[in-house]
Amino acid sequence: MRSLEVKNRTSTDDIKSLRLITALKTPYLPDGRFDLEAYDALMHMQILNGAEGVIVGGTTGEGHLMSWDEHIMLIGHTVNCFGGTIKVIGNTGSNSTREAIHASEQGFAVGMHAALHINPYYGKTSADGIISHFEAVLSMGPTIIYNVPSRTGQDIPPSVIRTVAQHANTAGVKECVGNDRIKEYTDEGIEVWSGNDDQCHDARWGFGARGVISVASNLVPGLMHELMFEGKNSTLNSTLMPLIEWLFREPNPIGLNTALAQLGVIRPVFRLPYVPLPREKRIEFVNIVKELGREHFVGDEDVQVLDDADFITVARY
Amino acid sequence: MRSLEVKNRTSTDDIKSLRLITALKTPYLPDGRFDLEAYDALMHMQILNGAEGVIVGGTTGEGHLMSWDEHIMLIGHTVNCFGGTIKVIGNTGSNSTREAIHASEQGFAVGMHAALHINPYYGKTSADGIISHFEAVLSMGPTIIYNVPSRTGQDIPPSVIRTVAQHANTAGVKECVGNDRIKEYTDEGIEVWSGNDDQCHDARWGFGARGVISVASNLVPGLMHELMFEGKNSTLNSTLMPLIEWLFREPNPIGLNTALAQLGVIRPVFRLPYVPLPREKRIEFVNIVKELGREHFVGDEDVQVLDDADFITVARY
Amino acid sequence: MRSLEVKNRTSTDDIKSLRLITALKTPYLPDGRFDLEAYDALMHMQILNGAEGVIVGGTTGEGHLMSWDEHIMLIGHTVNCFGGTIKVIGNTGSNSTREAIHASEQGFAVGMHAALHINPYYGKTSADGIISHFEAVLSMGPTIIYNVPSRTGQDIPPSVIRTVAQHANTAGVKECVGNDRIKEYTDEGIEVWSGNDDQCHDARWGFGARGVISVASNLVPGLMHELMFEGKNSTLNSTLMPLIEWLFREPNPIGLNTALAQLGVIRPVFRLPYVPLPREKRIEFVNIVKELGREHFVGDEDVQVLDDADFITVARY
Amino acid sequence: MRSLEVKNRTSTDDIKSLRLITALKTPYLPDGRFDLEAYDALMHMQILNGAEGVIVGGTTGEGHLMSWDEHIMLIGHTVNCFGGTIKVIGNTGSNSTREAIHASEQGFAVGMHAALHINPYYGKTSADGIISHFEAVLSMGPTIIYNVPSRTGQDIPPSVIRTVAQHANTAGVKECVGNDRIKEYTDEGIEVWSGNDDQCHDARWGFGARGVISVASNLVPGLMHELMFEGKNSTLNSTLMPLIEWLFREPNPIGLNTALAQLGVIRPVFRLPYVPLPREKRIEFVNIVKELGREHFVGDEDVQVLDDADFITVARY
Repeated sequence: MRSLEVKNRTSTDDIKSLRLITALKTPYLPDGRFDLEAYDALMHMQILNGAEGVIVGGTTGEGHLMSWDEHIMLIGHTVNCFGGTIKVIGNTGSNSTREAIHASEQGFAVGMHAALHINPYYGKTSADGIISHFEAVLSMGPTIIYNVPSRTGQDIPPSVIRTVAQHANTAGVKECVGNDRIKEYTDEGIEVWSGNDDQCHDARWGFGARGVISVASNLVPGLMHELMFEGKNSTLNSTLMPLIEWLFREPNPIGLNTALAQLGVIRPVFRLPYVPLPREKRIEFVNIVKELGREHFVGDEDVQVLDDADFITVARY
Repeated sequence: MRSLEVKNRTSTDDIKSLRLITALKTPYLPDGRFDLEAYDALMHMQILNGAEGVIVGGTTGEGHLMSWDEHIMLIGHTVNCFGGTIKVIGNTGSNSTREAIHASEQGFAVGMHAALHINPYYGKTSADGIISHFEAVLSMGPTIIYNVPSRTGQDIPPSVIRTVAQHANTAGVKECVGNDRIKEYTDEGIEVWSGNDDQCHDARWGFGARGVISVASNLVPGLMHELMFEGKNSTLNSTLMPLIEWLFREPNPIGLNTALAQLGVIRPVFRLPYVPLPREKRIEFVNIVKELGREHFVGDEDVQVLDDADFITVARY
Repeated sequence: MRSLEVKNRTSTDDIKSLRLITALKTPYLPDGRFDLEAYDALMHMQILNGAEGVIVGGTTGEGHLMSWDEHIMLIGHTVNCFGGTIKVIGNTGSNSTREAIHASEQGFAVGMHAALHINPYYGKTSADGIISHFEAVLSMGPTIIYNVPSRTGQDIPPSVIRTVAQHANTAGVKECVGNDRIKEYTDEGIEVWSGNDDQCHDARWGFGARGVISVASNLVPGLMHELMFEGKNSTLNSTLMPLIEWLFREPNPIGLNTALAQLGVIRPVFRLPYVPLPREKRIEFVNIVKELGREHFVGDEDVQVLDDADFITVARY
Repeated sequence: MRSLEVKNRTSTDDIKSLRLITALKTPYLPDGRFDLEAYDALMHMQILNGAEGVIVGGTTGEGHLMSWDEHIMLIGHTVNCFGGTIKVIGNTGSNSTREAIHASEQGFAVGMHAALHINPYYGKTSADGIISHFEAVLSMGPTIIYNVPSRTGQDIPPSVIRTVAQHANTAGVKECVGNDRIKEYTDEGIEVWSGNDDQCHDARWGFGARGVISVASNLVPGLMHELMFEGKNSTLNSTLMPLIEWLFREPNPIGLNTALAQLGVIRPVFRLPYVPLPREKRIEFVNIVKELGREHFVGDEDVQVLDDADFITVARY
């Protein structure tokens, strides 16, 4: 189903060169549909503050709560509006090989620059099965492999990564296991992005990582850019830690969703099964923002502590 | 769900100005999936020969044989690759208001310039129901209303058209009932495109039509461009009649599909319930091409009579 | 994908023997989802009053406003709750051969007794294409072919019916063209159900029709049973005419939906593009009920004239 | 959307009483669609050998590789053919609350007796989010909660189980964490099924578990029935261990799929990302069968070692 139109094509090397990729939040309207105005505003904030790529519909963007047609639509929308300025990486991975194939074909057809692919979470499979899964999609275009055993229930064995890394379309690995694992790969010439905001500074400057696929950069894109581009900076890294720790106390993107709503850049709407952080954590966030400086965060409004009644959770959408 | 990104926006006046719009054929791979390479080649032929707009997934493009995700993907693909050069009009109409809303939201989100909307065929509804149906989608962006009672089983009454035409997003009407009906509208300042290739010359030059939404232009885009732009030309119009009559002897796009396959620009693959024309009709087409001149038709290969065995019909895809 | 479980199987002869089949209304909750409690109640009324079969999700049941998963679910629900008492005929037809195949496979898998298949409306195709379309589904189980050119834009030619009728699974034809066409078929031994309530008495008693697939029987199942079973009865037939004429003044099921709501057996909820009849027609209905006798109609509540404000129309559901 | 038809209703107590529930394998045709003939045969083997319930489309049944319409269809099919003889528990859980709601509504509508619900795997959420997720579906009918952190990446905290267990529709918990956890619940009067074949004997006879939701019972239903019903039997339990260990050396259902194919009761077709076990493991299985006695296994054919070429893996279906 491949299209050869030049406009669609980005080289794998282009993807390999990215240092700051944001796993973008998907904002919602009160009825649970996408809030594209808010989304476009978030995209502008990313572009203006130096993000070079975005993951559309990642776990942070709640791709697992989208139907595939919503997901592909969002990729197509992002490419159409911003694809000339920033690399658009669609999370077209799935634990179903059929769905991963279908979504990746469609994502590349609407112009995404690269795909993010996960090993089959929940269902799990053998090492041979994981390789077959990735091989079913690798021929379609530039691809980042994503390893996050705390979500998938299964670590992708390094032997599988090594096999898959030989494909010309493999741009590299988003690795969440830790910096020793990262070093193992970067020593062999495999590009790696840290998937852990708290480890990404060291990964980048001490373990050979190319950069980060970040959640925190949704909030402080400029600081994350500085962390990845301006040289080793343990002071900045330490300064960011309270924010990062706060972000991940509950499974991501619960903290992020709560934070963006309090910064006034998205409506306080949650698709279930996500629910907002409790009030005491919401107060903590406001203090963190004041400590770090409101000017480093996205948005122009005062940060505020939202009330329970301000939040909307939607089950049918 | 609206996006305000400038790149997405085309004014209704831009749509109103189009004279030659092609209801584009969707080509298939042998397994029934879209053949995007062939599709992109068809798009190039349209652009090079002067088409100003395309209908994606119209009845000619077999939108009714697509799943909505395929359909939106094709719109997004077309916008991404060709949207800077040609107007992309998505046939996001449906006999289900829910589906029309869903598809139009998604189509505009991926950047289509206008929507084509049909009245509820097959299910049919009252005049009030038709108005409610169109009003549910008109706010989303520039819209062309499509009237083709021979397919829908129901003529859109002029009173409905007049009501709907008052919406600022209504670009005009694709009208298949005939040139007297067209004149009724154009006299009132409503833009109309003829939906009948055999009547479009007269519609354009004698009944006030803006132009045509054409099937024949898939085959002879240059001649159809001449017919719409270069002034009244009854000779050219007469010359085209044998081709046009041949095209519509069976329900469209059966003739078109057969013709494009014999011109070598698409694979001879039919999604059921369409099946190729029989051999004697295929021979006729080759003679028509020779009569009219191969150089006026799309593609570079010799036109040929395909054998029955050359054709593939697919039921599951 | 066929199952051989005996419980699933009904012979084509069983289907051929049915005289009163109701094209059942699908009732909705205020948010547009199915109202299964109301649906089950309607089913009971049909069974108690002598209907021998139901069409699930026909044009009357607004199958064209359902997603396929809703549609198959409704078939499965009906089979599970009532399949031992009444024949369940799923309208798994489509103008897309792929969808017709998919839905028919699923419908038979969940136990429907027969499929109703339409020729490809709106898209239309050649006679050869229509035959290929039907042949793609006929092997799956007992099938009724549905001809309604006023909806499809295309009369199924008798030659096509004759070809298709030779398949052992073809139970017969639901014919809306008229009683002369019916006689043409019944003379040849093809079973026919009239699809027109106003002609069904004559079709049954004068033109050889097996019976009727009825809309009016949603309202007066007992009288329709009498009309089909108790011998020629021109008086009863004439008595029913005002009701039947009222029912079809706007495209079906607009009248039926309005009537059932005023009888208090369904909530007054319309899925767009259907909208209720205007007040003057709603008053007429109440008078017709009184004339004919409330006791002949389904439901126990007084018939009432609903206000405009009582009706809910839903666009997203 | 609830239906009150008696036929649909099974009491939560009925579900609580089940001791042997099989997480049934879904067999495929060579093109990847369901093989319903083989499925029905597997169902008969379960019924004849004493299984009291089946999980349809569990992780063993590869529900995560189904589209929802396939999944609901399979539930409806199972209810229709076997619902009078065995309890049908649909795995209508999802990591998306929307999907869990939609699937559970549909599953109960087609007559399933109970739902199996998982906490949101992969996406994960907070304890409050997990409770909200389960509360969104619990009102629909009898429900078993499923805890399998090795797949979901997140243990359901006992505090959440205690909250959810108070709902009248909660039948109990399928617990894979181990027998100490099981005892914690059974001491409090919460029903538990062991989700681990290797621990289920002890769970049943020593830790208060009601019974097992078993994979091994696909192969040796009679022995598993004996293990659950005939009293403590460490000898039998030990005898089964080599089979159980073999089954789970790679993620389930890889071993099961391979085993059933070699027993000749299903076609050797795998939906990716599952691939068959390598030849040496296939030989091991044949030896295990011979050791344990062919007569204890499902099917009548000789067990055989299949060749690599006998297996079909499908990616598009």
